Amino acid sequence: MAETPYSRLEKLFRRLSALADAEAVLDWDQAAMMPRGGATARAGQVAELRAVRHGMISAPETGDLLDAAEEGDGLDAWQAANLHHMRRRWTHATALDETLVRALAEAESACETAWRTARPEADFAAVLPSLQAVLDLVREAAAAKAGTLGLDPYDALLDQYEPGARAEDIDPVFDELEDFLPGLLGEVLAAQAAGSAPTPPPGPFPADKQRALGMRLMEAFGFDFDHGRLDESLHPFCGGVPEDIRVTTRYDEDDFASGLMAILHETGHALYDRGLPRAWRGQPVGDAIGMAVHESQSLLIEMQVCRSRPFMDFAAPLIAGAFSGKGAEWEAGNLHRLAIRVRPGFIRVDADEVTYPAHVILRYRLEKAMIEGGMEAADLPGAWNQGMERALGITPPSDREGCLQDVHWYDGAWGYFPTYTLGAMTAAQLFQAADRADGAIGEGIARGDFAPLLAWLGENVHAKGSLLSSDQLIIAATGRPLDAGAFKAHLKRRYLD
Amino acid sequence: MAETPYSRLEKLFRRLSALADAEAVLDWDQAAMMPRGGATARAGQVAELRAVRHGMISAPETGDLLDAAEEGDGLDAWQAANLHHMRRRWTHATALDETLVRALAEAESACETAWRTARPEADFAAVLPSLQAVLDLVREAAAAKAGTLGLDPYDALLDQYEPGARAEDIDPVFDELEDFLPGLLGEVLAAQAAGSAPTPPPGPFPADKQRALGMRLMEAFGFDFDHGRLDESLHPFCGGVPEDIRVTTRYDEDDFASGLMAILHETGHALYDRGLPRAWRGQPVGDAIGMAVHESQSLLIEMQVCRSRPFMDFAAPLIAGAFSGKGAEWEAGNLHRLAIRVRPGFIRVDADEVTYPAHVILRYRLEKAMIEGGMEAADLPGAWNQGMERALGITPPSDREGCLQDVHWYDGAWGYFPTYTLGAMTAAQLFQAADRADGAIGEGIARGDFAPLLAWLGENVHAKGSLLSSDQLIIAATGRPLDAGAFKAHLKRRYLD
Repeated sequence: MAETPYSRLEKLFRRLSALADAEAVLDWDQAAMMPRGGATARAGQVAELRAVRHGMISAPETGDLLDAAEEGDGLDAWQAANLHHMRRRWTHATALDETLVRALAEAESACETAWRTARPEADFAAVLPSLQAVLDLVREAAAAKAGTLGLDPYDALLDQYEPGARAEDIDPVFDELEDFLPGLLGEVLAAQAAGSAPTPPPGPFPADKQRALGMRLMEAFGFDFDHGRLDESLHPFCGGVPEDIRVTTRYDEDDFASGLMAILHETGHALYDRGLPRAWRGQPVGDAIGMAVHESQSLLIEMQVCRSRPFMDFAAPLIAGAFSGKGAEWEAGNLHRLAIRVRPGFIRVDADEVTYPAHVILRYRLEKAMIEGGMEAADLPGAWNQGMERALGITPPSDREGCLQDVHWYDGAWGYFPTYTLGAMTAAQLFQAADRADGAIGEGIARGDFAPLLAWLGENVHAKGSLLSSDQLIIAATGRPLDAGAFKAHLKRRYLD
Repeated sequence: MAETPYSRLEKLFRRLSALADAEAVLDWDQAAMMPRGGATARAGQVAELRAVRHGMISAPETGDLLDAAEEGDGLDAWQAANLHHMRRRWTHATALDETLVRALAEAESACETAWRTARPEADFAAVLPSLQAVLDLVREAAAAKAGTLGLDPYDALLDQYEPGARAEDIDPVFDELEDFLPGLLGEVLAAQAAGSAPTPPPGPFPADKQRALGMRLMEAFGFDFDHGRLDESLHPFCGGVPEDIRVTTRYDEDDFASGLMAILHETGHALYDRGLPRAWRGQPVGDAIGMAVHESQSLLIEMQVCRSRPFMDFAAPLIAGAFSGKGAEWEAGNLHRLAIRVRPGFIRVDADEVTYPAHVILRYRLEKAMIEGGMEAADLPGAWNQGMERALGITPPSDREGCLQDVHWYDGAWGYFPTYTLGAMTAAQLFQAADRADGAIGEGIARGDFAPLLAWLGENVHAKGSLLSSDQLIIAATGRPLDAGAFKAHLKRRYLD
C-alpha cells in the first residue's frame, strides 16, 4: 500500500508509543524497585528518552505531515480522531523546546527521589529546593503552552491530563460541592455518632496474606497475571503498558482495608488500560481519553462497587478466609460499615468519598495559586495546613500528613488533581447509567460476577479509546453531560439512607 | 568552552549511553519481573530503543565528527582511547542497516520469551522456529560485519564481545585445554573416589534464608544495596547500570550452594561495574573492556576466592547460621570439599572448574558451525548430545539439560561463549599476580577482609575501564600476555594437591 501522510504519521506515533512504553516501565521500576542510589542515572535515562521523543515529534517533517494529512480526505472516524489527537500532541510538544523538556525530566526525577526520603522523615525543607526548581520549570512550561494554545497557564497544564477541561468550568462544580459537602458531612457524622460503631477485625494482617487476598480479588475482576503484576510502592499506582500492567499498593499490617482498597482502585485503572481498543494500540486514538475518565474507572470499581454492601457479601468470606478470621467483626455487614465509615483525615488516598473532594479542591486551589498567583513552594506547608483547617477542621501534625503526602507536584504532575473529583462524578454518573441499563450488573456484584458490569464498561468506555472526547463519551454512555447530580445522589443514598 | 568534534562526540555518546542504560533496565525487568504476556510489547520497546540508538550513531554527521576528531590533536590518553572506542562502535553499528537492527531485536526478544517456556518443558521444537529466525538474522549481521571489518563472520561476532579476539588465537588455547583437562579430570575423579566423600548439609534451604545469606556475603564484598538489588531469574546474571546494579540468581531449596555461588559470581561482575572509572561514566572508555575481563572478575571472586578453603573458614559459620545448621556437615572443611567437588554434569552454570571448559568448547564449536559451517538450528539437539558424550561421556536426558539450558543463542548472543574460558584463564592469571603482589590479599580472605584484594583489582582492572585493551591490561597487571599456565597450575594445585 502506498504511503500517505496519514500512514507515515501512524508509523511515527507507533515509534513514539514504544518509547513512551519504555519510559512507563522505567517509571514503575523507579517507584517499585529502584534502589535510592540509582536515581541520578535513572533521571538521565528518562530525560534522554523524553528528549528523543520530543525530537521525533517536533521534527519539521511532522508538522508538514500533519498539514498534508489534514488537507486529505478518506479517513474514517477512528483515523480522523487519531489525526486530531496527533495534532494535539504535536501542539503540546512543540510548545516546549528540548532544553526545557530535558530540564523538566531531570528536575522531576531528582525531586521525586528527594521526596521519597523527605516524606517519611516529614522533612519538607529537604525537598523544598528541588520542588521550587520543578515549580519554576513547570511555570515556564505552562507559560509556553499557554501562549501556543491560547489558554491561561493553569488551563494549559490541566489540558495535558484532561483535554478540553478548563478552570472556568471546574470552579462552579467545585463551588457546588463545597456548598453541598460540609452539610452532608455534618449529617453523616451525626448519624454515625448516634449509632453503634463498626468493629475493626483484629490484626495484625501480614503483608503476604494481604497480597494474596488482593490478587484473589484482582482475579475476580478479570485481572490477568500473565499480563500484569502486583507490587509495592510508597504511593499506590497503576503503571506499565496495556499488555503488562503494573499495579502497586502499600501494606499496613494493622489495617488491611487501606492496601486492599488501593489494589481494587488501581485494578479499575488496569481494566481500562487492558480494555483499550487493541486495533489502535500504539496510536493516540487507542489511548485513554483523559485522566478524569481514567479515574472514573478506578473509582467506579473502588467506590461504586467495592464499598457497596452487595460486594461485601461476596468479599467478606474471602477476607475472613485470608486472615483466618472468625466472628462478628468479619461479617459482611460490619466490614461494609467499616468500608463506608466517614472520618475527616489528613491523607487523601485514605479519605472517604464524602471528604475526598475537600482534599482535591484544596490541592487545586494551591497549585493554581502556585502556577498563576505568585505563591511559592516555601509557602506550601502553611497554606496547606490553613486550608485543611478551613476545609475539614483538622491540622496535620507534620508535613508528612500534609503537603508531603502526594507525589504529584514533586514529580511534575501539576494540573492533575482536579481529575480525581471529576472522575468521582463521572464514576457515579456512569455507574448509575450502567445499573439502569442492565439489571444483571447489580445482581452480579453480590455473587462476585462482574462480567455484566465489565461488558457494559468495556463497550461504553474502555473500547472507545480516544474516539470520543470525554464529554461525548459521557453523553453517549449516560444520556447527558457530566454534572454533580449522580455523585450527590450516590453520597446521600449511601451515607444517609 | 568551544565545542570541538571530539567534545561533540562525547555529548553524542553520553546520550547513547543513557539510552543503552534504559535498555539494560528493561532487559533486567524482562528476565526478573515481566509477566509472560508482556513479551511482544517489550520486544517493540527494545527494538525501538535500538533503532533510535542505531540512527543516532550512524547519522552521517557522526562519521564526519570521527574523521575530524581523528585528524585533530591535543587529546590525552583517556580521550584518545575513548575516540578509538567511538570509532569501533561506529564501525560495528554502521555495518548493519536499521531494518536488520530492528528485526534482530524483535526476533531475539520473541525467541527469548519462547525459550522461557520451552526450557522448563524441555520442548526444543517449540522454540526451534524462533531460534532459526534468530540464527538467520545473526548470520546476516555476521556477514555484514565481516565485510566491513575484514574478518571472518564468526570473528566479527566474537569481536562484539571481546574486541580483538579471533578464532585463530582461541583454537590453540582450547586445543591445549582439551589435551590437558581429560587427564586431569581422570586423576581428580580417581582421587575423589579413593577418599571419603563430603556430606551435603541437610536441607531444605528456604529461599528467603538463601537470599539473606547471599545479601550478607554480597555486603562482605562491599556490594552496596543503595546502588543495587538481588532478585531471581531463570538464568543468573548481573545487569542494570553501574549506579544501580541488578544481580539475579535462582534458588534450589535442596541445594543452597548453587544459588549462593551464582550470587558470588555475579557479585564479581557487579564489583567490576561499580569500580569502572566514574569520571568516564557514559563514555565508551568508561565501559568494561570486554567480556573476557568481565568474566575474569566474576570467576576470580567465585572460583579463586569463594571456593577456596580460606574463604570457607570465613563463610562456614555464616552459612551454618543462616540455616541454623549444626554438626560436621557445616564445618569449613566439609563445605569446602563440597564446593570443589568435581563431577561431570549437564549444566554449564553448575559445572566445576575442571569440566567447565568442555561445556564452553562444545558451544564454541557448535556456534561456529552454525554461523560458518552450514549447521542449522534443527541439528542442534543431536550435535549437542553427541558433543557432550564425546567431551564428558554423558548424554543429557532431555534438551532441558542440553541445548535449551543457556539463554545466549535464543537471546542473540552468538560469539559470546569463548569469553567464559578466556575469563577463567584471566582470573587465574590475575589472582596469581595479585596474590604475589600483596600478601595481605590471601591473609584477608580467611577473615572476610576483601579490602586488599578489591584494592588491587580496583587499581589494576576496574578503574582502567577501556583505557587499555584486554591484552594490554593483562600484561600491565600480570607482567605477561594471557596464557593457560596459571589456570592449569591453579587446577592442579586445588584438585590434586
